[in-house]
Amino acid sequence: MSTKRKLRIAIDMDEVLADTIDKFIELYKQRHQTEILLADMHGKEITEILPPHLSSSLRPYINEKGFFRDLKVMPDAQEVVKALHEKYDVYIASAAMEFANSLEDKQAWLNEHFPFISWTNIIFCGHKILDVDIMIDDRTKNFVTFNGRKLLFTSPHNALINNFERVNNWQEVAAKLLST
Amino acid sequence: MSTKRKLRIAIDMDEVLADTIDKFIELYKQRHQTEILLADMHGKEITEILPPHLSSSLRPYINEKGFFRDLKVMPDAQEVVKALHEKYDVYIASAAMEFANSLEDKQAWLNEHFPFISWTNIIFCGHKILDVDIMIDDRTKNFVTFNGRKLLFTSPHNALINNFERVNNWQEVAAKLLST
Repeated sequence: MSTKRKLRIAIDMDEVLADTIDKFIELYKQRHQTEILLADMHGKEITEILPPHLSSSLRPYINEKGFFRDLKVMPDAQEVVKALHEKYDVYIASAAMEFANSLEDKQAWLNEHFPFISWTNIIFCGHKILDVDIMIDDRTKNFVTFNGRKLLFTSPHNALINNFERVNNWQEVAAKLLST
Repeated sequence: MSTKRKLRIAIDMDEVLADTIDKFIELYKQRHQTEILLADMHGKEITEILPPHLSSSLRPYINEKGFFRDLKVMPDAQEVVKALHEKYDVYIASAAMEFANSLEDKQAWLNEHFPFISWTNIIFCGHKILDVDIMIDDRTKNFVTFNGRKLLFTSPHNALINNFERVNNWQEVAAKLLST
């Protein structure tokens, strides 16, 4: 690794750039008249709080074409990632391979909402074996073999984890990575 | 990086696992009655040896849905990659993002011909900023910021490059990486 290059950041998509949980809430409201409450999700995966008769319904929904295409952008993500992109070498890294139907949707979503991110800096993978300096992710499993700076982006499922440097929103990312 | 884990290898797809050049040759024969000779490609990109009136025809073909779906597998690639997979942590890493329409084809092709490679170990990217120990690739641009062992897989376009450790085929990869 050259010491003169810009620091590299890998930024996750789901629940970091894209509001996947909002989509789940809307989907269960519309298709099952079932209200999922954010308050019930504290420290839990969505599958853990779904009514028993719906507990295996989540994965097929995620596999549907289009699921990832219309997700809302997380508040302030566009502005902060744009500013990070000026200062750092920013990569968007999503474990998209788990859902074969998600790749084209995710690509189109990124091109729409983050058009300044070049195709060269988009990574769809499984294990995030990335040679970067900073990783922003809501899943601690992605930090396991990573030796750089780990920023755990708050999502309900990780609310009870307290052994990582945490960022609760994009303003907090900006405060940590853009202030100096 | 843990010192106890298996060594990680990143293996490229086009012209390493998949015979993209064979597809180009067939395509120009069928659609343009034009014969592309491997002998003319020594040290050159295909675009450099196409007749002038066809020189801008290549990119649209690569962008066609299906282009990457029926590529032939390179000789011995399946057997050797299977054996590597037993000894190493094998990742398939393709700069697929350059061609938005290639992602699903490449995914399906890998699932068909290399079904033992889990989705967790497939990476579609642009720049190959990977935390691996060994990289097998036909493009030296992918070696630029990589500090591990680089194996340049012979393809006509790289024939004149001589400052990298070279493997001419999958049997030579086996001899280097499976003999000890």
